Amino acid sequence: MSAPERMSGLLSPVLTPFDAELKPDAARLAAHCRWLVGQGCGLAPFGTTSEGNSLTVGEKVVLLEALVAAGIDPARMMPGTGATALTDAVELTRRAVDLGCAGVLMLPPFYYKNVSDDGLYAAYSEIIQRVGDDRLRVYLYHIPPMSQTPLSLALVERLVAAYPDTVVGLKDSSGDWDNTKALLEAGLDDFRIFPGSETFLLAAMRLGGAGSISATANVNPAAILDLYDTWDADGAEEKQAAVDAIRAIFVEYAAIPALKACVAHFAGDPGWTRLRPPLVELTAEQAKATIDALDAAGFTMPGLATAEAAE
Amino acid sequence: MSAPERMSGLLSPVLTPFDAELKPDAARLAAHCRWLVGQGCGLAPFGTTSEGNSLTVGEKVVLLEALVAAGIDPARMMPGTGATALTDAVELTRRAVDLGCAGVLMLPPFYYKNVSDDGLYAAYSEIIQRVGDDRLRVYLYHIPPMSQTPLSLALVERLVAAYPDTVVGLKDSSGDWDNTKALLEAGLDDFRIFPGSETFLLAAMRLGGAGSISATANVNPAAILDLYDTWDADGAEEKQAAVDAIRAIFVEYAAIPALKACVAHFAGDPGWTRLRPPLVELTAEQAKATIDALDAAGFTMPGLATAEAAE
Repeated sequence: MSAPERMSGLLSPVLTPFDAELKPDAARLAAHCRWLVGQGCGLAPFGTTSEGNSLTVGEKVVLLEALVAAGIDPARMMPGTGATALTDAVELTRRAVDLGCAGVLMLPPFYYKNVSDDGLYAAYSEIIQRVGDDRLRVYLYHIPPMSQTPLSLALVERLVAAYPDTVVGLKDSSGDWDNTKALLEAGLDDFRIFPGSETFLLAAMRLGGAGSISATANVNPAAILDLYDTWDADGAEEKQAAVDAIRAIFVEYAAIPALKACVAHFAGDPGWTRLRPPLVELTAEQAKATIDALDAAGFTMPGLATAEAAE
Repeated sequence: MSAPERMSGLLSPVLTPFDAELKPDAARLAAHCRWLVGQGCGLAPFGTTSEGNSLTVGEKVVLLEALVAAGIDPARMMPGTGATALTDAVELTRRAVDLGCAGVLMLPPFYYKNVSDDGLYAAYSEIIQRVGDDRLRVYLYHIPPMSQTPLSLALVERLVAAYPDTVVGLKDSSGDWDNTKALLEAGLDDFRIFPGSETFLLAAMRLGGAGSISATANVNPAAILDLYDTWDADGAEEKQAAVDAIRAIFVEYAAIPALKACVAHFAGDPGWTRLRPPLVELTAEQAKATIDALDAAGFTMPGLATAEAAE
C-alpha cells in the first residue's frame, strides 16, 4: 500500500442512516456513499453531520469495514477519528490507516474546556506516535461551535513543524472567514485547508484553498463540485450564489435533520430521517417547508438510488 | 440484589491514576478508593475530576470490575456513565447496575450544542428504557462549564415525572448557587441534590441538600464530612470557611493536576501525577507552591497508604 496523496476537492461528511432500533445501517450508508462517489465527491464519514460522536468506536469500525467490503474506495475516504479518550482515537485511527483510508479528520479531545495548546499538542502528538504509521495523514478538525476547543494557528504551525508529512491539512468549521484566511495566508507548505462550508469555497480557492468538506455535499455535490472545478472562470460568483441559496434552505431549521429529510424524500425512503438523540427529527411542518423550498428552487438529487435496505 | 437506597453524604469523583504508558492503574485506584471509603466518603469514579471521558468504555468496565473484585463496596459507588454515544452510555450503565452500583452519574450527550430539551429528554429516556432494570438509579450531571449542555429545571422535572423511581438526584456543577437553590426549592420529592463543590455545602444543607460530590473530596474528605455531619450545630460557618480555604489552594492553578500532585506528595508516589492529554501536569514550581500552601495550612492526608503498585 503506497503513501496516500494529500486530498483536495469536495468531501461529504456522510450522513449516518439508522434502522428502527437506531443501529447504524451499513447497507443504506454504502448506497449513499456510492452515489456521492459517483457524483465526484469524497467521503468524510463520522464527521459532525454524520453524528460521528453519537456512535461508539466499535460501531464506526464495523461501518468502515463494511464500506470497504462494499467496494467503496478507501482512497476517497477521510473518516473522523478524534475522540475524548486518547485510546479511542488511537484505535479508530489505526483501523482507518490499516484499511487504506487516504486520511483521517481529527477532532481534538473535546470534553475539557480552556485547555492549553501544550495539552492539545500532546494529545495529537501522542495519537500520531502511538499509531506510528508512515501512511497516516491527519487533517485537523477546527470546529469551535461544537468542540468548544479551538485549534490556534500557533498550535497548527507547531504540529506541522513536528509532523510535516503527517499533519497535512485542516477543516475549518469555525464559520469565521478571518480564521480561514489567516490559515490560508500562513504559508504552510502544501497544507490542505478545507472550509467547513461551501459558502467560503470561492473565497478560499482564490487564496489557495483545497476545496471544502461540507454538510450540504451530502445532497448537492454536483453543483458545489462544478463551482470547485470552475472557480477561476466566468460565472463563478453566480455559481457561488446558487449553492448558497440551496444551503440556506437546510440551515433554516436544523441542518442535520433537514439533510436527512431531504435524502429520505428523494430516495423515497422515510426511514432515512432517523437520528440518535440528542438530535431530533424535523417536525412534519418543517420537513414539508424544506421540501417545498427545494422544489421551488428546482432542486433534485439525480441518480439517487432508492434504498434496498429492509426495514 | 435489593433496590439501592437513594444516596447522600460526600462522594469523591475519584482521581484516576495512570501507569507510565498512560494506562489506568487499577491497583493504585483501588488503594485510593479504600482510603476514601475508610474516611467515610462515597465514590463517584469516572467523573470530570476522574478524567472519565479520557477513558474508553472498555477501560471503565475493567476498572469497575477490578474495584469490586478488590472488595470496594458497590453500594458506595455512583460511577459516571454518560457519553456522547447512546450505545456507550447504555453499555456502561448496564454494567454498573449489574455490578450492584448504588447509582450512576449521568452526563447528557455533550458533543452537539444548543440541543433541545426534547432531544435531551429522549437521550436520557432511551438509556433508561434500554437498560430496563428496576435497580437503576440515575443522578443527572449538570456541568455546563464542561458539557456546555445545561439541564434545565423543566427538563429535570419532566424526567423525574416520567421516571420517579429511577431519576432520583442531580449533581449541580454549574457553580451557580441560584441554580442549585432553584433545584432545592423546586419541591421534587426526595430528590437528592449534590452541589458540585463543597463551597455550597452549608447553604445547600440548610435547604435540604443531599451532601456534595466534589473534586476536593479526593484529598480532604474528613473535614468536609465533619461539616456535613454538623451543619446545623455551632461552628458550621467556621468549618465551611476552613474547607473553602483548602479548596482555594487546589483551584489556584488547575484543580485536577493539583489534586494529583497532592496525592503523589502525601503517598510518596511520584507516578500519581500523570494525566492523559489534553490535561497537563503542574509545573514543578506550581506543584511546589501547592504543597507549600498545604503545609502552611497544616493540611495532611492521614492514613493514606503508599501505593504498592509497581512502576
